[in-house]
Amino acid sequence: MFSKNIQNLKTSPVRELIPYSKKAKEAGIDIIHLNIGQPDLETPKEFFEAVENFGQETIAYSDSSGRKELIDSVKGYYKNLGMNYDSEEILITAGGSEALLFTLMTLFDAGEEVLIPEPYYANYNSFFAMLGIKVVGIPTQFEDNFKLPKKEVIESLVTEKTKAIMFSNPGNPTGSVYSKDELLMLNEISKEKNLFLISDEVYREFIYDGKDTVSCGTFSDNLERIILIDSISKRFSTCGARVGTILNKNKEFMAYILKLCQSRLSISTLDMVGAEALYRCKDRAYYEVVNAKYMERRDFLYEGLKNIEGVVLNKPEGAFYCIVQLPVEDATEFSKWLLGEFSYDNSTVMLTPAKGFYQREELGVNKVRISYALDLDRLEKAVKIIELGLKKYNSK
Amino acid sequence: MFSKNIQNLKTSPVRELIPYSKKAKEAGIDIIHLNIGQPDLETPKEFFEAVENFGQETIAYSDSSGRKELIDSVKGYYKNLGMNYDSEEILITAGGSEALLFTLMTLFDAGEEVLIPEPYYANYNSFFAMLGIKVVGIPTQFEDNFKLPKKEVIESLVTEKTKAIMFSNPGNPTGSVYSKDELLMLNEISKEKNLFLISDEVYREFIYDGKDTVSCGTFSDNLERIILIDSISKRFSTCGARVGTILNKNKEFMAYILKLCQSRLSISTLDMVGAEALYRCKDRAYYEVVNAKYMERRDFLYEGLKNIEGVVLNKPEGAFYCIVQLPVEDATEFSKWLLGEFSYDNSTVMLTPAKGFYQREELGVNKVRISYALDLDRLEKAVKIIELGLKKYNSK
Repeated sequence: MFSKNIQNLKTSPVRELIPYSKKAKEAGIDIIHLNIGQPDLETPKEFFEAVENFGQETIAYSDSSGRKELIDSVKGYYKNLGMNYDSEEILITAGGSEALLFTLMTLFDAGEEVLIPEPYYANYNSFFAMLGIKVVGIPTQFEDNFKLPKKEVIESLVTEKTKAIMFSNPGNPTGSVYSKDELLMLNEISKEKNLFLISDEVYREFIYDGKDTVSCGTFSDNLERIILIDSISKRFSTCGARVGTILNKNKEFMAYILKLCQSRLSISTLDMVGAEALYRCKDRAYYEVVNAKYMERRDFLYEGLKNIEGVVLNKPEGAFYCIVQLPVEDATEFSKWLLGEFSYDNSTVMLTPAKGFYQREELGVNKVRISYALDLDRLEKAVKIIELGLKKYNSK
Repeated sequence: MFSKNIQNLKTSPVRELIPYSKKAKEAGIDIIHLNIGQPDLETPKEFFEAVENFGQETIAYSDSSGRKELIDSVKGYYKNLGMNYDSEEILITAGGSEALLFTLMTLFDAGEEVLIPEPYYANYNSFFAMLGIKVVGIPTQFEDNFKLPKKEVIESLVTEKTKAIMFSNPGNPTGSVYSKDELLMLNEISKEKNLFLISDEVYREFIYDGKDTVSCGTFSDNLERIILIDSISKRFSTCGARVGTILNKNKEFMAYILKLCQSRLSISTLDMVGAEALYRCKDRAYYEVVNAKYMERRDFLYEGLKNIEGVVLNKPEGAFYCIVQLPVEDATEFSKWLLGEFSYDNSTVMLTPAKGFYQREELGVNKVRISYALDLDRLEKAVKIIELGLKKYNSK
């Protein structure tokens, strides 16, 4: 009765926990959401000001490709990063999600293969399922902070059905950042095997400790195959404003993406008005202030968790996530237990079981993803709850 | 190199004309856009007020299903129309476009068939192409204002691959409105042949002369198969605010749609804030005022055009479009000529060639679609230009 692809849609890794979180909420327990990548920082006031000063009486369709003013300001942002994209090499989408969906729709026939380092952002699975794309996981190791394997290993996974290598850098859910050398290696494979490189860089501005990395948009020898996915959501704490970007220098590819943009006529005009103001007025100083806040949280969380007996994690290098190995057999059961049967000071935490981020689910069984897009007070309490919770859970 | 489906994407019927309109614009000619369904009326001020009073410091993701407040206000709007939809039978989408895309994704495997009265809204073709859906046109006649054919004719088009009947009512591009009896007939076929009925009712409030029609949402014997597509774009003159709705009472269908909504996390939070205010505060009086304006324009355009020698059209019954037969061999060539080689008082008009709305393109060759979402002064001038243009074109 319903389409085959739709029946293959997986549920998100956190969905299993929702009945438990509902119950906890109903019982009046304060849930600290370590499961959500929703920054708590204020949206810069310039966004709201621009929307209030919109000044037109009718909210009309905007150009399907995005408002010209926004494309210009995105262009300026990239120019400041040393990347020269022309206006027709930039298309605006309803968030990074639509940017990815349109990209995959344009590249893949059903049954074709995408290479992707696992663990990877679970929402990608929805797009793969919708389009019947086969996922081939590139193996990485928790133990060495999810570094890419050697070139030969990745090359050995390429078949004649492989269309693209896709990844997010900095990584969700890993919090790791690929080095320039790792990315250059992917770029070589892309050129040698004629594969597109889909680089999801929505966390670009969240890189800590001066880690040596670059945007794939700087690989000027291969920009027809490199597709940059971007979004204002995390960068400016504006997740509910749906403004993403696709950047690429392949005219045919961009012409197809434009047709997909035309099929949905326009994205939100007011969201674009806000976004263009932010790209115009925010400079390095803004990103550094935001970055410093997340780094402080990262440090606090990392120190707090690694001192808990049996807990293992890598120091996150970017974004605001980390994969944490817990001294339990099944992290999903523990996460349910925390919501359903444990509280401290009338509070508990909600974690994301990591198995949903893996192709081979067994790799994630004793791990969770933690997001630290929360203030220090909340994080302090969360660490305490995990510590006390583990102690009680393991003494059952 | 690119996906097969994407290579099947047609270009929109008006795209051929764009180089000509650009040239006219560059020459300083004022183009009257009869090609765009973009209402010129003001967006009600309550939309802007609600957005300005948003009051939160962070624009966060909203629920994937839509803001609860918006769902409540949509529910109230439908209740006032005599249709009782529960909250979980209503999902909010990024405009009517996403509502349609998600609906088609959920129902159709590639190669399955949709029945659709032709001519139909050309953008539907993008969604059909993306998903590899085969379109089977239900024949209608320009001469009787696009009435549906007899039940037997439609039934004879049903194969084992047919999944749904889809249509917009009031119709874009036809401007015709199906009678209650015609809709009941479709409802019978839906039940007898077990087909979904996808009823695009975004122009619901634009029905003139008290034409006897209903929403398919009132067919209470078949609401598991009836999928209503709705949007605020035209209703409230808010095309650039992307807020659509899917309403249906089939739990499994709605569960799949919800998963698709989750895959893109959230639609625009501020657009929803504005939309919920409009659904809350606008009542019949508002729709009637708007309606009266469009009816005045409709009457003006209809009288003006039918007095031009050789021009044939039906009196539009709803929406703000009509299909107009011109005394020329090829309406596309005439439309190009109007833009490229004709002007009156330094103005010209842009029409939409109708062939792109037909499966069998030859049916639309001497016709155009005209949108009358413009004020009376502009319409008066447009009629004059078409009259003088035809005279000159045919005396060449």
